[in-house]
Amino acid sequence: MRTAVFVEPGKVEARDFEHPKIQEPTDAVIKIIRACVCGSDLWWFRGLDERKHNTVVGHEAIGVVESVGAEVTHVAPGDFVIMPFTHGCGHCAACKAGFEANCFNSKEHGSSGFQGEYVRYTLADWSLVKVPGQPDDYTDAQLNDLLALSDVMATGYHAAASAEVKPGDTVVVMGDGAVGLCGVIAAKLRGAKRIIAMSHHEDRAALAREFGATDVVAERGDAAVAKVRAMTNGGADAVLECVGTSLSVDTAIKVARPGAVVGRIGIPQETTDANAIPFRTNVGLRGGIASVTTYDRDVLLDAVLKGEIHPGRVFTQRFDLDHVQEAYEAMDQRKAIKSLLVISQ
Amino acid sequence: MRTAVFVEPGKVEARDFEHPKIQEPTDAVIKIIRACVCGSDLWWFRGLDERKHNTVVGHEAIGVVESVGAEVTHVAPGDFVIMPFTHGCGHCAACKAGFEANCFNSKEHGSSGFQGEYVRYTLADWSLVKVPGQPDDYTDAQLNDLLALSDVMATGYHAAASAEVKPGDTVVVMGDGAVGLCGVIAAKLRGAKRIIAMSHHEDRAALAREFGATDVVAERGDAAVAKVRAMTNGGADAVLECVGTSLSVDTAIKVARPGAVVGRIGIPQETTDANAIPFRTNVGLRGGIASVTTYDRDVLLDAVLKGEIHPGRVFTQRFDLDHVQEAYEAMDQRKAIKSLLVISQ
Repeated sequence: MRTAVFVEPGKVEARDFEHPKIQEPTDAVIKIIRACVCGSDLWWFRGLDERKHNTVVGHEAIGVVESVGAEVTHVAPGDFVIMPFTHGCGHCAACKAGFEANCFNSKEHGSSGFQGEYVRYTLADWSLVKVPGQPDDYTDAQLNDLLALSDVMATGYHAAASAEVKPGDTVVVMGDGAVGLCGVIAAKLRGAKRIIAMSHHEDRAALAREFGATDVVAERGDAAVAKVRAMTNGGADAVLECVGTSLSVDTAIKVARPGAVVGRIGIPQETTDANAIPFRTNVGLRGGIASVTTYDRDVLLDAVLKGEIHPGRVFTQRFDLDHVQEAYEAMDQRKAIKSLLVISQ
Repeated sequence: MRTAVFVEPGKVEARDFEHPKIQEPTDAVIKIIRACVCGSDLWWFRGLDERKHNTVVGHEAIGVVESVGAEVTHVAPGDFVIMPFTHGCGHCAACKAGFEANCFNSKEHGSSGFQGEYVRYTLADWSLVKVPGQPDDYTDAQLNDLLALSDVMATGYHAAASAEVKPGDTVVVMGDGAVGLCGVIAAKLRGAKRIIAMSHHEDRAALAREFGATDVVAERGDAAVAKVRAMTNGGADAVLECVGTSLSVDTAIKVARPGAVVGRIGIPQETTDANAIPFRTNVGLRGGIASVTTYDRDVLLDAVLKGEIHPGRVFTQRFDLDHVQEAYEAMDQRKAIKSLLVISQ
């Protein structure tokens, strides 16, 4: 069986590996149906983040359970599942509080090897999200919507939940990548009345509008702050920070009204000055790695199954495992918003 | 009429002034009954914060309205009122969101001159909190409880509200000054099940226990982090940061469980590193200047009038205006948790 491997910066390829086996009683082995490339993968692909060469890659997928360990009772071989990149035990204090990305019992610091034909999935019993029926029961577009629930849609939702978006809010979304676009979906799903997407790419702005953005602001930095503050009469009720650069975090804080919370899921790329979080205006900052299983079970799977949200629309190009290099390049060169990998269906 | 004045670092004294007059139609002039010294006053008293010499001081008081401007209709001469140090118009976006400390229409950046016999109070119509009856109707202890609602109790409550304390929570309170102690009261009022007060002063720890603390931890820094994490099985559900030093903020963040929010009201005294707010553990930071009027009206006045909370217990020494110097010294030398100034009753 084959899995994509990081060869060196700028190069990935599919290689042969032994079929994965159950190693822990909490494991499952899963046959992967569809996977995809994450914006965070570009950091090591571009050589900006350190990553060991010749390691398997990918952390977003949907699949069918092939085998399970002795302690896995909630899913069984043959089940169609979403495979969250977070792995929670379901019973520690972090999981119980709804933050399984910080599970005290997980040995995984992020999944890998999901861009392949089969993978061993840890803490499978609580973490996997069972989907009714079989892959065959779903359309191509539905499979993509379900795939988005393994990371990107749940991550966008985490930004909105961390920012405490509530019905009637005016929300600003920083970042027009796939996660930011899913943040727009999430803000709308939580009842936001006005959604201002910060975007200066026409294709992404168009998708933001399709997802529910009421306004698009193309300016950046101080010009963006001035424009949004004028549009919102002093600042937004909630801000989703889906980039992670200092400039974006700074802008996010400055477009928030007093008392608003910046929900951040952009992985911080630089050291920022903590004084950027202003005591005197009561603006808060919270967020981090998403609670994928929790959001999927509570909100997102239902919304996809009912056809209320279409996060799979972020996949604008598709590839197979033989062309994984092209899948990465399409995102690296901004030709694709997000690259889909069709593995077996 | 007399008001306390900052003469120079280490020296305050009461001096004669002209009786204040209504200047704006939104003003009130108030005869002060009781005032007090704030922990934040010690910063300029000690010469650590810049403050102009020979300026009037004090921002916490209760009193009786003497006269009002033409636009003030919610309070009338003769009304007994709590005088929040925050001044909100009540109709801007910040006030409507419940953050009147950040009112877009307030020209005040903190009150002053409340440690005196009379004061002009701005934005009086919305900000003043009317108390039923007259000062004579209340006991000495009740007057002190009401006085605490002008700042310290509302500020402690803001820490708990910002940290999103909810019923059943395990809460850590950093800081055993008057605000931290009021934070303990607030945590209990919001239904916390376990309240861990960080204190290494026996008199303050005793008051924390009286206010509802279930545990007291005397350790500081890493030793405190280790102890609290062990006690809480991985971290508290909410943390109140009522100090403002880098060490305290750092400890607060480290004793929070994944997903918890640190509610901070300690005025930051030092530059802290934003990386201290850890992305990977989903710990948040929010807070700032309290919403005094909002909390008093929504929760705190009722709790005082019903005798459910006794924040006036933080006043451990009393003085008159002739002895305002001694009132400051008692706090500066930690002989008093908080110094009361009995002005006219």
